[in-house]
Amino acid sequence: MKNILIIGAGKSSSYLIKYLLEKSYDENLFLTIGDISINLADKLINNHENAKSVVFDVFNAEQRKEFIQKSDIVISMLPARFHIEVAKDCINYHRNMVTASYVSKEMKTLDEAAKQKGLIIMNEIGVDPGIDHMSAMQVIDRIRENDAKILLFESFTGGLIAPESDDNLWNYKFTWNPRNVVLAGQGGAAKFIQEGTYKYIPYHKLFRRTEFLNINGSGKFEAYANRDSLKYRSVYGLDDIPTMYRGTIRKVGFSRAWNIFIQLGMTDDSYTIENSFNMSYRDFVNLFLAYSPSDSVELKLRSYLKIDQDDVMWEKLVELDIFSDTKKIGIENATPAQGLQKILSDSWTLKDDDKDMIVMQHLFGYEINGEKRQIESSLVVIGEDQTYTAMAKTVGLPVGIAALKILKKEIKTIGVQIPIAKEIYKPILDELAENGIQFTERKVPYLGYNPQSVNG
Amino acid sequence: MKNILIIGAGKSSSYLIKYLLEKSYDENLFLTIGDISINLADKLINNHENAKSVVFDVFNAEQRKEFIQKSDIVISMLPARFHIEVAKDCINYHRNMVTASYVSKEMKTLDEAAKQKGLIIMNEIGVDPGIDHMSAMQVIDRIRENDAKILLFESFTGGLIAPESDDNLWNYKFTWNPRNVVLAGQGGAAKFIQEGTYKYIPYHKLFRRTEFLNINGSGKFEAYANRDSLKYRSVYGLDDIPTMYRGTIRKVGFSRAWNIFIQLGMTDDSYTIENSFNMSYRDFVNLFLAYSPSDSVELKLRSYLKIDQDDVMWEKLVELDIFSDTKKIGIENATPAQGLQKILSDSWTLKDDDKDMIVMQHLFGYEINGEKRQIESSLVVIGEDQTYTAMAKTVGLPVGIAALKILKKEIKTIGVQIPIAKEIYKPILDELAENGIQFTERKVPYLGYNPQSVNG
Repeated sequence: MKNILIIGAGKSSSYLIKYLLEKSYDENLFLTIGDISINLADKLINNHENAKSVVFDVFNAEQRKEFIQKSDIVISMLPARFHIEVAKDCINYHRNMVTASYVSKEMKTLDEAAKQKGLIIMNEIGVDPGIDHMSAMQVIDRIRENDAKILLFESFTGGLIAPESDDNLWNYKFTWNPRNVVLAGQGGAAKFIQEGTYKYIPYHKLFRRTEFLNINGSGKFEAYANRDSLKYRSVYGLDDIPTMYRGTIRKVGFSRAWNIFIQLGMTDDSYTIENSFNMSYRDFVNLFLAYSPSDSVELKLRSYLKIDQDDVMWEKLVELDIFSDTKKIGIENATPAQGLQKILSDSWTLKDDDKDMIVMQHLFGYEINGEKRQIESSLVVIGEDQTYTAMAKTVGLPVGIAALKILKKEIKTIGVQIPIAKEIYKPILDELAENGIQFTERKVPYLGYNPQSVNG
Repeated sequence: MKNILIIGAGKSSSYLIKYLLEKSYDENLFLTIGDISINLADKLINNHENAKSVVFDVFNAEQRKEFIQKSDIVISMLPARFHIEVAKDCINYHRNMVTASYVSKEMKTLDEAAKQKGLIIMNEIGVDPGIDHMSAMQVIDRIRENDAKILLFESFTGGLIAPESDDNLWNYKFTWNPRNVVLAGQGGAAKFIQEGTYKYIPYHKLFRRTEFLNINGSGKFEAYANRDSLKYRSVYGLDDIPTMYRGTIRKVGFSRAWNIFIQLGMTDDSYTIENSFNMSYRDFVNLFLAYSPSDSVELKLRSYLKIDQDDVMWEKLVELDIFSDTKKIGIENATPAQGLQKILSDSWTLKDDDKDMIVMQHLFGYEINGEKRQIESSLVVIGEDQTYTAMAKTVGLPVGIAALKILKKEIKTIGVQIPIAKEIYKPILDELAENGIQFTERKVPYLGYNPQSVNG
């Protein structure tokens, strides 16, 4: 029997464990699932005979080393900052490792050691990053094999609420870590390049500079730019590409309303506010408005941000009950971002039967024989329930498939890496398609940035 | 003879050196003026017999220790981050020290050692911080001595161009470090309290939330909030004061136009832009606008920020020649802030006969015998020329006066400190007044934040 150690039994592990348990009979697998909370692990194992749970503390070096030595491969589903010690042990004890997280600088430094020992440390093999890399590279490689010149690559991903559960004015609920949603876009200007012209958007304008996109069968969406699209030029081997843009998808109208919170300063996580515990939502909003005791919070906000009374943005604020003078923040020494997250959680927490949705779209513009063409490749995945979400499926399934293929030596590329080699993405995308994670590709007119083609 | 070591012969040292040289005969002083550039020091010494210049490198520990040991007191006019090593040596070798900079955390940790050795490490004794502390504390102490309750303290300072040299649409030139002007307000939300209500302004709204103020004889000004007004409550012993606000003064209309640069993202100093050296001002502006090659940079900017074509803000941009396609940034790997600074420097650099101006105003609201009153205290200082500027005078003179009084043991309070004790501020303010740095005080109606009194 092959032993697989899975560290972390949180939201993103459900589908991974389900997949590997389904494969456990044919492939002769045994899973050891470690988490600080054994209940989480037990729930996902559901008494399956080919798995056991253990209380696992990643900071306990002795236990970590012991379990890594007892395994044939290690999958870390912990938050990214916890991977590095696991990775070092994996290298020490000659074990391959898989994570869905971005390669950290520290992780990168292990590349040589991994290669010397012939080990695979596979990262960024969830959904974004992960499926985005693999599905993009598949089309990029195909275009390049035809000796075409790639002119444009735009890529958009979003974790949203499924249409059947979409019942608020924001067309949004927290389907993943709410904190990341509140802080999205912070930490530096967004950077991208369009037809050879560099563009930089500061955070406070990010949600006012969205792009629209259409996903066949799912309608119109918008996307705000991710922080650094430029670095993906070298990642994808597209160093001289004139247009490179990556963005995050929301339903149309979300960003314009979200911008209210940014303008007010409510997404700031860098300082704590005084007396936050007993503060009403109304007083919280008032922290960010001019002092004028004879004017209402509502009027001050509308005047400050120039919101018409019949603007749907206003209805969105009212829907959140953000002007309530009875609801309390209830957090000691809250940052503005924590206060906002509390208010949003009242309205944006999934109901028991709500389902989530992952949407992704790539645009590839290229020139072949003097003719400009464009391919649009789109993916929509709807979650099953609140355990087997679209997010858990699109993160966990590629992780599980990769781990199994590494274990079976079908994936052989060694080193600290991300899944951009054909040897890796091809079989994984094929198996994802068998599991309903399949891109729809179509040819569209080459768009470019000529206003006539924009209108046309 | 008493030896005074002055480290740093930059812009802010001119008046300090002039003052101490004037006193050198009566007080038996000899100045050693150290700077990396001996020319700067020589120019300010101007062959005076009671001073000598030395090439001085603050990072040369041996030289630093040697000169500190040879002095009776040390004045550091270097940028704040260079003070700490000087301060440690001063404590080791039993020397008093004076700086015009904010007390850093590291500097604060030397307090106990300074006290044990009976030493004075006087900081924040320039203009802002410095004269603001002293002039505020003088009035605050007087009000408290009358058993009145202080309700409000607002304090504003600005380094501006003198009216006779004010010849551009911005009513502004660089009279001090241009980099600090471009980066002003960054690094966290502005925090203050008004009638017991905390207020927080994010950077991208800071210049749209200005307050107006009138300075008798000098007209109307505006001020944007400083980063942390709250901490001054404890500094001034006003922990329970309901209104505490500190701001930076500009001429009316500056902030509204400056906000354009913030909105565009041009004041960002956190990343470098590609190909900046040969970039025209026009292309620089275009980095921050949507990609649309068939539209002009001008129209894109006006549309993005909703600027009417006949708005004076527009004229301000045109005056800077910011849309020039021939003028170049000329800096390798420039940050946006560095690029903007270059553009502004073309227009905002002082002409040979330009003079600068320091303006300061404090408002003190208080209640005595059930009656609310307000005192307005204002200072205007005009520079003499480009060496003996108002900034150099208001920074250097209090430093020089303090150093001399410490040397003569007229100031006795020991420890790492700022000038808020009466023993310190009283004689210094008196001598500043003799030198033309004198506040004008008048009683005004208590304003508060009632709209009727605002209109009244």
